[in-house]
Amino acid sequence: MTHPFLPAFSLPARNRRVLLTSRPVGIPQADHFNLDEAALDPVGEGQFRVRNIYLSVDPAQRGWANEGANYSDAVPLGSVMRALAVGEIVESRHADFPVGLHVYGWFGWQDYAVAGPEALMTRIDQVAAPLSAYAGVLGINGLTAHLALSKIGRPRQGDTVLVTTAAGAVGSTVGQLAKAAGCRVIGLTGDDDKVARCTSRFGYDAAANYKAGELAEAVTALAPQGVDVFFDNVGGPILDTVIRAMNVAGRIVQCGTASIANWYPVPTGLRNEREVLMRRLQWGGFVIFDHTADNPAALAHLAPLVADGSLVHDEDIAAGFEAAPGAIARLYAGENEGKSLIFVG
Amino acid sequence: MTHPFLPAFSLPARNRRVLLTSRPVGIPQADHFNLDEAALDPVGEGQFRVRNIYLSVDPAQRGWANEGANYSDAVPLGSVMRALAVGEIVESRHADFPVGLHVYGWFGWQDYAVAGPEALMTRIDQVAAPLSAYAGVLGINGLTAHLALSKIGRPRQGDTVLVTTAAGAVGSTVGQLAKAAGCRVIGLTGDDDKVARCTSRFGYDAAANYKAGELAEAVTALAPQGVDVFFDNVGGPILDTVIRAMNVAGRIVQCGTASIANWYPVPTGLRNEREVLMRRLQWGGFVIFDHTADNPAALAHLAPLVADGSLVHDEDIAAGFEAAPGAIARLYAGENEGKSLIFVG
Repeated sequence: MTHPFLPAFSLPARNRRVLLTSRPVGIPQADHFNLDEAALDPVGEGQFRVRNIYLSVDPAQRGWANEGANYSDAVPLGSVMRALAVGEIVESRHADFPVGLHVYGWFGWQDYAVAGPEALMTRIDQVAAPLSAYAGVLGINGLTAHLALSKIGRPRQGDTVLVTTAAGAVGSTVGQLAKAAGCRVIGLTGDDDKVARCTSRFGYDAAANYKAGELAEAVTALAPQGVDVFFDNVGGPILDTVIRAMNVAGRIVQCGTASIANWYPVPTGLRNEREVLMRRLQWGGFVIFDHTADNPAALAHLAPLVADGSLVHDEDIAAGFEAAPGAIARLYAGENEGKSLIFVG
Repeated sequence: MTHPFLPAFSLPARNRRVLLTSRPVGIPQADHFNLDEAALDPVGEGQFRVRNIYLSVDPAQRGWANEGANYSDAVPLGSVMRALAVGEIVESRHADFPVGLHVYGWFGWQDYAVAGPEALMTRIDQVAAPLSAYAGVLGINGLTAHLALSKIGRPRQGDTVLVTTAAGAVGSTVGQLAKAAGCRVIGLTGDDDKVARCTSRFGYDAAANYKAGELAEAVTALAPQGVDVFFDNVGGPILDTVIRAMNVAGRIVQCGTASIANWYPVPTGLRNEREVLMRRLQWGGFVIFDHTADNPAALAHLAPLVADGSLVHDEDIAAGFEAAPGAIARLYAGENEGKSLIFVG
């Protein structure tokens, strides 16, 4: 099924790959990975070959790379690092997935993935936004923001919503969606530039740098009426502080624990069960991969907002496989400015 | 409105009262209270006088007696200890609340309370069970068990439900209701006699003494399939252990924190936010006083079960005001066997 007016696509003989070669404890660093090249895998019946264009870098990759209980098995040592990516089908033995179709899914940190339909998060039949957006604001980050906020956060008009990693790929979307829902939206983030972007770019009513001064005082100043919805991506002492500023019947969305570098041994912190009880909180954990059935509707909600510019998003795009090994650590250090992607197309 | 065939009821001149006279830090002890006698208060228009029969002793009284943020204001020093009680109206200036009506409400630790309709939890028009039951299994304990379990725990047939203070006034009811919902029900309690009563009397499938041996191993042994619903009345290290045995999408009902003697300063414990996230838990706090609109329906559900004996309950009834000052501490020490009441009728 080659297009007559296009030159025949010729595959290179080799597939560049980023392998996980040693087991991190905590945040994966560049030296936990090796780059290599391997022969292309054959495409089996019912499968297709995806040429990756944008590799996704996600906080969840920490958990996938580490030993120990997680919501998915650890990436085996010596294999391609598990990752989402946006790519294009370049070879197909599945009638419903033609060459030229763009897809977003579990294609790993490599040039070419052989996959079947089960590896797809999104089939991009109509490209309504730049392709990179499908790995971020229209990928797991935006889907997480929308579904976690609506299912667990349940913001009501007039609520105060506080968001951590407020300028990040998930947080910046949560902030805008909460604002659109009629809430007062407060952002916490880790540097002054991001604080400024929260209010100037992402529509937060107010924001603060959690590293500057006394956080409890900042939260009281920014949210004098208390916090109704706490969308938390960091956990740790920031969580301990914000939970004590929550209103009765407040909701906590636990979407990440980025502030904790290492869970072995389990760190200690303030006991929070009395806060759950006395404030009658509802505290729920959210992992986007539980909600695949809701992705199409969520995407249908978000795509027009991205296309018409009413939902803004930042991307931090590096080029080339060499950027991949250090990218997760860079994310946890807060050095990225927006959704972290690696362009390999 | 004196009944012609009854002797005229003559009020004693004095009202015996249990006053909170010093401020506890943590669990109130006997010496935080004084007994006294005072003149009877006048009954105003729209009010009635209740002669208390059973005074209730509840874990929540700890919070009411302590300084500091709680869901209600602290009991002022020198005033009657806040408490629920079951009594009978003996004098009325409210047409809808006649003399002879039994009521359950905020009547305090004293002989006689002057109150209005707003002080009532339950108007007992038809006495379908022993009066004492209306302060326990048909009072806040049973209402808490039923409403917290159904609203936050949401047990499904086949779920494993784990209950702390499993033989207590709330726990023993939760256990029976969960069993009736088709669950496997596990009890944790603090002594071997209570362990035995869990299985022999309250229908638990299995139970363990959390003070005996390694709790994590006991939980694994009793709940090899993991815990779906954790009905927790204690918090602390027991919570930290059980949360790590929970299944994905499990629910935690935080109904008490009885294992923590003092919240000032806030004690530390294992960080649990990663468990909330990875296990996608839903952790909710429950205080019965938020749910008064649901009390009549809950009571209608529970009363027939109590009346026909299918919902069993234990009562630990002391006699006389002298038992009141030490009763809360006795509760936290786990020395009561069933709902703690003081008969003063």
